[in-house]
Amino acid sequence: MDVRYVNPFILATKHVFKTMFNVEVSVGKPSLKEAKTASSDITGVVGLVGEKTGMLAVSLSGSAATCIYSILFGEKAESHRDPAVVDAIGELTNIISGQARMGLETSGISLRAAVPMVLVGKGMEICYTSKLPVVSLPLHFELNNGEPETGFIDFSIE
Amino acid sequence: MDVRYVNPFILATKHVFKTMFNVEVSVGKPSLKEAKTASSDITGVVGLVGEKTGMLAVSLSGSAATCIYSILFGEKAESHRDPAVVDAIGELTNIISGQARMGLETSGISLRAAVPMVLVGKGMEICYTSKLPVVSLPLHFELNNGEPETGFIDFSIE
Repeated sequence: MDVRYVNPFILATKHVFKTMFNVEVSVGKPSLKEAKTASSDITGVVGLVGEKTGMLAVSLSGSAATCIYSILFGEKAESHRDPAVVDAIGELTNIISGQARMGLETSGISLRAAVPMVLVGKGMEICYTSKLPVVSLPLHFELNNGEPETGFIDFSIE
Repeated sequence: MDVRYVNPFILATKHVFKTMFNVEVSVGKPSLKEAKTASSDITGVVGLVGEKTGMLAVSLSGSAATCIYSILFGEKAESHRDPAVVDAIGELTNIISGQARMGLETSGISLRAAVPMVLVGKGMEICYTSKLPVVSLPLHFELNNGEPETGFIDFSIE
Protein backbone atom coordinates (compact mmCIF):
# COMPACT_ATOMS: atom_id res chain seq x y z
CA MET A 1 0.00 0.00 0.00
CA ASP A 2 1.14 3.52 -0.81
CA VAL A 3 2.57 5.17 2.34
CA ARG A 4 0.81 8.42 1.42
CA TYR A 5 -2.40 6.72 2.52
CA VAL A 6 -1.25 6.20 6.10
CA ASN A 7 -0.87 9.77 7.32
CA PRO A 8 -4.47 10.89 6.66
CA PHE A 9 -5.73 8.11 8.97
CA ILE A 10 -3.28 9.08 11.74
CA LEU A 11 -4.15 12.78 11.48
CA ALA A 12 -7.90 12.10 11.29
CA THR A 13 -7.83 9.94 14.44
CA LYS A 14 -5.84 12.51 16.42
CA HIS A 15 -8.05 15.37 15.19
CA VAL A 16 -11.33 13.63 15.99
CA PHE A 17 -10.26 12.52 19.49
CA LYS A 18 -8.98 16.04 20.22
CA THR A 19 -11.98 17.97 18.91
CA MET A 20 -14.73 15.55 19.99
CA PHE A 21 -13.40 14.27 23.32
CA ASN A 22 -10.63 16.76 24.18
CA VAL A 23 -8.32 13.74 24.38
CA GLU A 24 -4.75 13.47 23.12
CA VAL A 25 -4.40 10.11 21.48
CA SER A 26 -0.97 8.62 20.92
CA VAL A 27 -0.85 6.71 17.66
CA GLY A 28 1.76 3.94 17.61
CA LYS A 29 3.89 2.77 14.71
CA PRO A 30 1.81 1.67 11.71
CA SER A 31 2.35 -1.98 10.89
CA LEU A 32 1.23 -4.24 8.11
CA LYS A 33 -1.14 -6.70 9.75
CA GLU A 34 0.30 -10.20 9.45
CA ALA A 35 -2.26 -12.28 11.29
CA LYS A 36 -5.15 -10.74 9.33
CA THR A 37 -7.36 -10.89 12.39
CA ALA A 38 -8.29 -8.32 14.98
CA SER A 39 -10.06 -8.89 18.23
CA SER A 40 -11.82 -6.34 20.40
CA ASP A 41 -15.03 -5.64 22.33
CA ILE A 42 -16.58 -3.23 19.86
CA THR A 43 -15.57 -2.29 16.32
CA GLY A 44 -17.07 0.12 13.83
CA VAL A 45 -16.40 -0.80 10.20
CA VAL A 46 -17.06 1.09 7.02
CA GLY A 47 -16.33 0.28 3.38
CA LEU A 48 -14.69 2.84 1.11
CA VAL A 49 -15.21 3.07 -2.63
CA GLY A 50 -13.94 5.45 -5.30
CA GLU A 51 -10.91 5.40 -7.57
CA LYS A 52 -9.65 2.79 -5.11
CA THR A 53 -11.55 0.46 -2.78
CA GLY A 54 -10.87 -0.07 0.86
CA MET A 55 -12.19 -0.21 4.38
CA LEU A 56 -11.71 1.29 7.81
CA ALA A 57 -12.22 -0.40 11.19
CA VAL A 58 -12.19 1.46 14.52
CA SER A 59 -11.81 -0.90 17.50
CA LEU A 60 -12.18 -0.01 21.16
CA SER A 61 -12.44 -1.72 24.50
CA GLY A 62 -15.90 -1.82 26.04
CA SER A 63 -14.87 0.65 28.76
CA ALA A 64 -13.49 3.13 26.21
CA ALA A 65 -16.72 2.89 24.18
CA THR A 66 -19.01 3.58 27.15
CA CYS A 67 -16.72 6.40 28.31
CA ILE A 68 -16.76 8.00 24.85
CA TYR A 69 -20.55 7.76 24.84
CA SER A 70 -20.82 9.56 28.16
CA ILE A 71 -18.43 12.32 27.03
CA LEU A 72 -20.51 12.86 23.88
CA PHE A 73 -23.97 12.68 25.40
CA GLY A 74 -23.44 13.44 29.08
CA GLU A 75 -25.23 10.21 30.00
CA LYS A 76 -23.94 7.04 31.57
CA ALA A 77 -24.28 3.75 29.68
CA GLU A 78 -24.47 0.35 31.35
CA SER A 79 -22.61 -1.51 28.66
CA HIS A 80 -21.00 -1.09 25.25
CA ARG A 81 -23.83 -3.33 23.95
CA ASP A 82 -26.32 -0.56 24.71
CA PRO A 83 -27.86 0.49 21.34
CA ALA A 84 -27.06 4.15 22.07
CA VAL A 85 -23.35 3.28 22.55
CA VAL A 86 -23.40 1.18 19.37
CA ASP A 87 -24.83 4.17 17.48
CA ALA A 88 -22.16 6.46 18.97
CA ILE A 89 -19.34 4.15 17.82
CA GLY A 90 -20.94 3.94 14.36
CA GLU A 91 -20.99 7.74 14.28
CA LEU A 92 -17.37 7.95 15.50
CA THR A 93 -16.32 5.60 12.69
CA ASN A 94 -18.21 7.76 10.21
CA ILE A 95 -16.50 10.91 11.45
CA ILE A 96 -12.97 9.43 11.42
CA SER A 97 -13.67 8.09 7.93
CA GLY A 98 -14.87 11.54 6.81
CA GLN A 99 -11.75 13.28 8.18
CA ALA A 100 -9.41 10.68 6.67
CA ARG A 101 -11.14 10.94 3.30
CA MET A 102 -10.70 14.72 3.39
CA GLY A 103 -6.98 14.15 3.97
CA LEU A 104 -6.78 11.59 1.17
CA GLU A 105 -8.38 14.10 -1.21
CA THR A 106 -5.25 16.23 -0.91
CA SER A 107 -3.28 13.22 -2.21
CA GLY A 108 -5.73 13.08 -5.09
CA ILE A 109 -7.61 10.04 -3.76
CA SER A 110 -11.35 10.59 -3.75
CA LEU A 111 -13.33 7.98 -1.81
CA ARG A 112 -16.92 7.64 -0.64
CA ALA A 113 -18.04 5.76 2.47
CA ALA A 114 -20.64 2.98 2.63
CA VAL A 115 -23.03 2.50 5.54
CA PRO A 116 -21.11 1.79 8.77
CA MET A 117 -21.75 -1.35 10.82
CA VAL A 118 -20.78 -1.97 14.41
CA LEU A 119 -19.58 -5.36 15.61
CA VAL A 120 -19.99 -6.36 19.21
CA GLY A 121 -18.89 -9.54 20.91
CA LYS A 122 -16.46 -11.07 23.29
CA GLY A 123 -13.63 -12.78 21.47
CA MET A 124 -15.09 -11.71 18.15
CA GLU A 125 -12.58 -11.75 15.33
CA ILE A 126 -12.56 -9.58 12.26
CA CYS A 127 -10.80 -11.45 9.50
CA TYR A 128 -9.48 -9.75 6.45
CA THR A 129 -9.15 -11.77 3.27
CA SER A 130 -5.58 -13.02 2.92
CA LYS A 131 -4.80 -10.98 -0.20
CA LEU A 132 -5.67 -7.68 1.42
CA PRO A 133 -2.82 -5.54 2.78
CA VAL A 134 -4.15 -4.13 6.04
CA VAL A 135 -2.37 -1.39 7.99
CA SER A 136 -2.93 -1.32 11.73
CA LEU A 137 -2.44 1.71 13.97
CA PRO A 138 -2.34 1.08 17.73
CA LEU A 139 -4.00 3.81 19.81
CA HIS A 140 -3.20 4.77 23.41
CA PHE A 141 -5.18 7.36 25.31
CA GLU A 142 -6.68 8.29 28.67
CA LEU A 143 -10.33 9.14 29.04
CA ASN A 144 -12.14 10.84 31.93
CA ASN A 145 -11.65 7.98 34.34
CA GLY A 146 -7.84 8.35 34.07
CA GLU A 147 -7.37 4.69 33.17
CA PRO A 148 -5.07 3.96 30.22
CA GLU A 149 -7.13 2.77 27.27
CA THR A 150 -6.11 1.12 24.05
CA GLY A 151 -7.71 0.68 20.68
CA PHE A 152 -6.70 0.37 17.09
CA ILE A 153 -7.49 1.56 13.61
CA ASP A 154 -7.19 -0.96 10.77
CA PHE A 155 -7.50 0.21 7.20
CA SER A 156 -6.83 -0.83 3.67
CA ILE A 157 -6.86 1.03 0.37
CA GLU A 158 -5.91 -0.68 -2.84
CA MET B 1 -36.57 1.07 1.52
CA ASP B 2 -37.77 0.70 -2.07
CA VAL B 3 -39.13 -2.84 -2.58
CA ARG B 4 -37.48 -2.97 -6.00
CA TYR B 5 -34.20 -3.40 -4.13
CA VAL B 6 -35.25 -6.67 -2.48
CA ASN B 7 -35.67 -8.96 -5.50
CA PRO B 8 -32.12 -8.62 -6.85
CA PHE B 9 -30.75 -9.90 -3.52
CA ILE B 10 -33.13 -12.89 -3.50
CA LEU B 11 -32.34 -13.79 -7.12
CA ALA B 12 -28.59 -13.32 -6.63
CA THR B 13 -28.54 -15.63 -3.61
CA LYS B 14 -30.51 -18.36 -5.35
CA HIS B 15 -28.40 -18.05 -8.50
CA VAL B 16 -25.05 -18.19 -6.68
CA PHE B 17 -26.02 -21.19 -4.50
CA LYS B 18 -27.34 -23.01 -7.57
CA THR B 19 -24.41 -22.33 -9.90
CA MET B 20 -21.58 -22.53 -7.33
CA PHE B 21 -22.81 -25.30 -5.04
CA ASN B 22 -25.59 -26.96 -7.05
CA VAL B 23 -27.84 -26.24 -4.08
CA GLU B 24 -31.45 -25.03 -4.13
CA VAL B 25 -31.77 -22.40 -1.43
CA SER B 26 -35.19 -21.49 -0.11
CA VAL B 27 -35.35 -17.78 0.69
CA GLY B 28 -37.93 -16.93 3.37
CA LYS B 29 -40.08 -13.85 3.63
CA PRO B 30 -38.08 -10.61 3.68
CA SER B 31 -38.57 -8.69 6.89
CA LEU B 32 -37.47 -5.31 8.12
CA LYS B 33 -35.03 -6.03 10.90
CA GLU B 34 -36.39 -4.66 14.16
CA ALA B 35 -33.75 -5.69 16.65
CA LYS B 36 -30.93 -4.29 14.49
CA THR B 37 -28.64 -7.08 15.54
CA ALA B 38 -27.67 -10.35 13.90
CA SER B 39 -25.83 -13.23 15.44
CA SER B 40 -24.04 -16.06 13.65
CA ASP B 41 -20.80 -18.04 13.51
CA ILE B 42 -19.39 -16.43 10.38
CA THR B 43 -20.51 -13.37 8.41
CA GLY B 44 -19.12 -11.75 5.29
CA VAL B 45 -19.86 -8.04 5.05
CA VAL B 46 -19.33 -5.60 2.23
CA GLY B 47 -20.14 -1.92 1.87
CA LEU B 48 -21.90 -0.61 -1.24
CA VAL B 49 -21.48 2.88 -2.65
CA GLY B 50 -22.88 4.64 -5.72
CA GLU B 51 -25.96 6.76 -6.28
CA LYS B 52 -27.08 5.21 -2.99
CA THR B 53 -25.09 3.78 -0.11
CA GLY B 54 -25.66 0.46 1.56
CA MET B 55 -24.23 -2.80 2.76
CA LEU B 56 -24.67 -6.53 2.43
CA ALA B 57 -24.04 -9.19 5.09
CA VAL B 58 -24.02 -12.94 4.39
CA SER B 59 -24.28 -15.02 7.57
CA LEU B 60 -23.80 -18.76 7.86
CA SER B 61 -23.42 -21.40 10.54
CA GLY B 62 -19.91 -22.76 11.01
CA SER B 63 -20.92 -26.14 9.57
CA ALA B 64 -22.43 -24.53 6.44
CA ALA B 65 -19.25 -22.47 5.94
CA THR B 66 -16.89 -25.46 6.17
CA CYS B 67 -19.19 -27.50 3.91
CA ILE B 68 -19.29 -24.72 1.30
CA TYR B 69 -15.50 -24.55 1.43
CA SER B 70 -15.16 -28.27 0.76
CA ILE B 71 -17.64 -28.12 -2.15
CA LEU B 72 -15.67 -25.27 -3.70
CA PHE B 73 -12.16 -26.57 -3.16
CA GLY B 74 -12.58 -30.32 -2.70
CA GLU B 75 -10.71 -30.15 0.59
CA LYS B 76 -11.89 -30.63 4.14
CA ALA B 77 -11.55 -27.79 6.65
CA GLU B 78 -11.24 -28.31 10.39
CA SER B 79 -13.15 -25.19 11.37
CA HIS B 80 -14.85 -22.14 9.93
CA ARG B 81 -12.04 -20.15 11.56
CA ASP B 82 -9.56 -21.69 9.11
CA PRO B 83 -8.14 -18.79 7.01
CA ALA B 84 -9.01 -20.66 3.80
CA VAL B 85 -12.67 -20.90 4.87
CA VAL B 86 -12.66 -17.22 5.85
CA ASP B 87 -11.35 -16.36 2.38
CA ALA B 88 -14.03 -18.54 0.77
CA ILE B 89 -16.84 -16.78 2.66
CA GLY B 90 -15.32 -13.39 1.72
CA GLU B 91 -15.35 -14.51 -1.90
CA LEU B 92 -18.94 -15.81 -1.61
CA THR B 93 -20.01 -12.42 -0.24
CA ASN B 94 -18.24 -10.72 -3.14
CA ILE B 95 -19.97 -12.92 -5.69
CA ILE B 96 -23.47 -12.50 -4.20
CA SER B 97 -22.83 -8.74 -4.04
CA GLY B 98 -21.74 -8.76 -7.69
CA GLN B 99 -24.84 -10.66 -8.83
CA ALA B 100 -27.17 -8.45 -6.77
CA ARG B 101 -25.54 -5.31 -8.14
CA MET B 102 -26.04 -6.58 -11.69
CA GLY B 103 -29.73 -7.05 -10.87
CA LEU B 104 -29.94 -3.59 -9.31
CA GLU B 105 -28.47 -2.09 -12.48
CA THR B 106 -31.64 -3.10 -14.32
CA SER B 107 -33.58 -0.95 -11.83
CA GLY B 108 -31.19 1.86 -12.66
CA ILE B 109 -29.23 1.60 -9.41
CA SER B 110 -25.49 1.49 -10.02
CA LEU B 111 -23.42 0.51 -6.97
CA ARG B 112 -19.80 -0.42 -6.39
CA ALA B 113 -18.57 -2.76 -3.66
CA ALA B 114 -15.92 -1.97 -1.06
CA VAL B 115 -13.44 -4.53 0.27
CA PRO B 116 -15.26 -7.41 2.02
CA MET B 117 -14.50 -8.35 5.60
CA VAL B 118 -15.36 -11.57 7.35
CA LEU B 119 -16.45 -11.68 10.98
CA VAL B 120 -15.92 -14.78 13.03
CA GLY B 121 -16.97 -15.45 16.58
CA LYS B 122 -19.32 -17.36 18.78
CA GLY B 123 -22.28 -15.23 19.77
CA MET B 124 -20.85 -12.32 17.83
CA GLU B 125 -23.35 -9.59 17.12
CA ILE B 126 -23.50 -7.33 14.13
CA CYS B 127 -25.30 -4.15 15.09
CA TYR B 128 -26.73 -1.79 12.54
CA THR B 129 -27.09 1.83 13.46
CA SER B 130 -30.61 2.51 14.64
CA LYS B 131 -31.54 4.81 11.74
CA LEU B 132 -30.70 2.25 9.08
CA PRO B 133 -33.56 0.23 7.56
CA VAL B 134 -32.16 -3.29 7.21
CA VAL B 135 -33.95 -6.04 5.29
CA SER B 136 -33.27 -9.60 6.38
CA LEU B 137 -33.78 -12.70 4.21
CA PRO B 138 -33.76 -16.07 6.02
CA LEU B 139 -32.08 -18.87 4.03
CA HIS B 140 -32.80 -22.59 4.28
CA PHE B 141 -30.82 -25.17 2.37
CA GLU B 142 -29.25 -28.62 2.50
CA LEU B 143 -25.61 -29.17 1.72
CA ASN B 144 -23.75 -32.43 0.95
CA ASN B 145 -24.13 -33.80 4.44
CA GLY B 146 -27.95 -33.72 4.09
CA GLU B 147 -28.36 -31.73 7.29
CA PRO B 148 -30.73 -28.74 7.13
CA GLU B 149 -28.72 -25.55 7.29
CA THR B 150 -29.81 -21.98 7.86
CA GLY B 151 -28.28 -18.63 7.18
CA PHE B 152 -29.41 -15.15 6.37
CA ILE B 153 -28.72 -12.21 4.13
CA ASP B 154 -29.06 -8.72 5.61
CA PHE B 155 -28.88 -5.70 3.37
CA SER B 156 -29.61 -2.03 3.26
CA ILE B 157 -29.70 0.50 0.47
CA GLU B 158 -30.71 4.07 1.07
